[in-house]
Amino acid sequence: APAKPAAQCTLTEFVGTAIGSTIGMVIANVDPLLHEQMGIDKKYRSIGIVGARTGAGPHIFAADEAVKATNSEVVLIELARDTEGGAGHGCLILFGAQDVSDARRAVEVTLSELERTFGDVYGSPAGHLEFQYTARASFALNKAFGAPVGQAFGITVGAPAAIGVMLADTAAKAATVEAVGYASPAKGTSFSNEVIFTFSGDSGAVRQSIQAARDVGKQLLGTLDAAPLVSSTTPYI
Amino acid sequence: APAKPAAQCTLTEFVGTAIGSTIGMVIANVDPLLHEQMGIDKKYRSIGIVGARTGAGPHIFAADEAVKATNSEVVLIELARDTEGGAGHGCLILFGAQDVSDARRAVEVTLSELERTFGDVYGSPAGHLEFQYTARASFALNKAFGAPVGQAFGITVGAPAAIGVMLADTAAKAATVEAVGYASPAKGTSFSNEVIFTFSGDSGAVRQSIQAARDVGKQLLGTLDAAPLVSSTTPYI
Amino acid sequence: APAKPAAQCTLTEFVGTAIGSTIGMVIANVDPLLHEQMGIDKKYRSIGIVGARTGAGPHIFAADEAVKATNSEVVLIELARDTEGGAGHGCLILFGAQDVSDARRAVEVTLSELERTFGDVYGSPAGHLEFQYTARASFALNKAFGAPVGQAFGITVGAPAAIGVMLADTAAKAATVEAVGYASPAKGTSFSNEVIFTFSGDSGAVRQSIQAARDVGKQLLGTLDAAPLVSSTTPYI
Repeated sequence: APAKPAAQCTLTEFVGTAIGSTIGMVIANVDPLLHEQMGIDKKYRSIGIVGARTGAGPHIFAADEAVKATNSEVVLIELARDTEGGAGHGCLILFGAQDVSDARRAVEVTLSELERTFGDVYGSPAGHLEFQYTARASFALNKAFGAPVGQAFGITVGAPAAIGVMLADTAAKAATVEAVGYASPAKGTSFSNEVIFTFSGDSGAVRQSIQAARDVGKQLLGTLDAAPLVSSTTPYI
Repeated sequence: APAKPAAQCTLTEFVGTAIGSTIGMVIANVDPLLHEQMGIDKKYRSIGIVGARTGAGPHIFAADEAVKATNSEVVLIELARDTEGGAGHGCLILFGAQDVSDARRAVEVTLSELERTFGDVYGSPAGHLEFQYTARASFALNKAFGAPVGQAFGITVGAPAAIGVMLADTAAKAATVEAVGYASPAKGTSFSNEVIFTFSGDSGAVRQSIQAARDVGKQLLGTLDAAPLVSSTTPYI
Repeated sequence: APAKPAAQCTLTEFVGTAIGSTIGMVIANVDPLLHEQMGIDKKYRSIGIVGARTGAGPHIFAADEAVKATNSEVVLIELARDTEGGAGHGCLILFGAQDVSDARRAVEVTLSELERTFGDVYGSPAGHLEFQYTARASFALNKAFGAPVGQAFGITVGAPAAIGVMLADTAAKAATVEAVGYASPAKGTSFSNEVIFTFSGDSGAVRQSIQAARDVGKQLLGTLDAAPLVSSTTPYI
């Protein structure tokens, strides 16, 4: 569902909201107590905070663009088991910066990218499909998925997990890609009902693998529920 | 809820759907990339895939019948934290076979058994109860629960977990059974809000324990919500 | 939502129900099989059981009062990933006692305290906020959170977790408190979409920190959903 219009919020820490029950905030001077408890390097005086109930892939790919575009680093990515009763994750992403304006900018870029990165997320009451692609992975994708920095990188996500297995096999067969990782309910996810396949390679090959998996995924998820599988925003891959 | 009629799906990999947002599929020749990522022995050229949003016990007991009836092995059982906002699990089960027809047959048997194994699943908005019984446990039950192969085996599941504790105590007292295992939110489940008690013994004793627990469970879960507790299909124990 | 009226339940083990899909029960003589499987000291012949679909903080703070008021001990606290599709936990709490009347009394006190401890729980479709405070922590809070026994102790909980980060920073800055712990989706929670900050100190300081965090939290959670954030019962802090 599209993000609801934000209520008036005059806190200086508030940055904005976005699709997926996503909120962005910033702390100019992190309290020393919190720095220690979070285990974050104290050189990051300021942190940017992006969190969501629904989605992790869209936010991590969006954060990757933020890292490229700003003077900030991704210092933490955690995946809750969430999606508001659905089969997947929610997320918590922290950016560290020495200056609050950099942290704020990282949050702003992330929020603005979400409209795009939700483009290949398809949901129904029975489950969801997610596809993401970048021509050049940066440090957020490296931290979250071990993506090789600077290379084309893609992911396929299917829920229930059984469909994700099929997406992975389809992607692996559709073009010459290299597997980066494979996560399933008991390994590498937060017990979500998903299989996540991650891969890199030639830019065209990565896209081709994703497109093949997307086509198969829609057919399979469609067998579980009659609801039409439409993009959450606008497909970009 | 009963499974919705499957949409038209002409993929050769698609086998069928069933109750519990369950889907069954088959891969004739698993891609080498995927074989490696999943950590599955390459001798299983073909895999059968069964996954669901709702339920794990019904699927594991169904898979146990499939293993008995076909030339396949259960190579992976993973329990997501799911049930579509409910208190329990979803599941991912993989069968390995050297021939695709065997993998397909294992999936077909599992899907067809689910109508029975959902027979002693009782749900309300407040939680659920599940009871399963087999006169002779095979390799799926051994893999998932450590059930002694060839013996009568039963499980009681209660959600919220507090009710599961009471089911376990009731089952333990009702007849002479041997405890096989006990899983709770923080130990042995995927943080589900369930207590699962597993036990073996004389066939009559195992059934008697289950019946006593079922009677107590319905009374307790009934205190949390006025919805009547009816079988998801038809009771079989 | 307020607890629904309990159905008639004549089982002697049943004690009562309460807000949060909470049920309380008692076992007078725990079966030896179960004692062993649960890993509970056999000197606790009787156990009191409190479990809920929604909430963990309210139940743990309520259990803390029960431990102070009765001749029982908290022998187990486990947090399921639950809240019926929401972002947080459910819980399972076991009291041990040598006499069934003590176990029953502990459960009764816990259930009766919940009306108060849900007082600073605020929920909307987008997430929730929770605040708890005690002037003197006892053994349930020590077991669950490592609270220093005998000292004032408070917690702030925000979901989605991003909001919880901001609550923690606000609480840390608002008064001179000492951090006891910090839990996030991947560390110290059951993959819930929460950040939980726990702290002790002077009684007035702990309350002041909570009040400041509560004020900030309502403004932030309000940006995600237009639903008014009202107390589940009556605020007590």
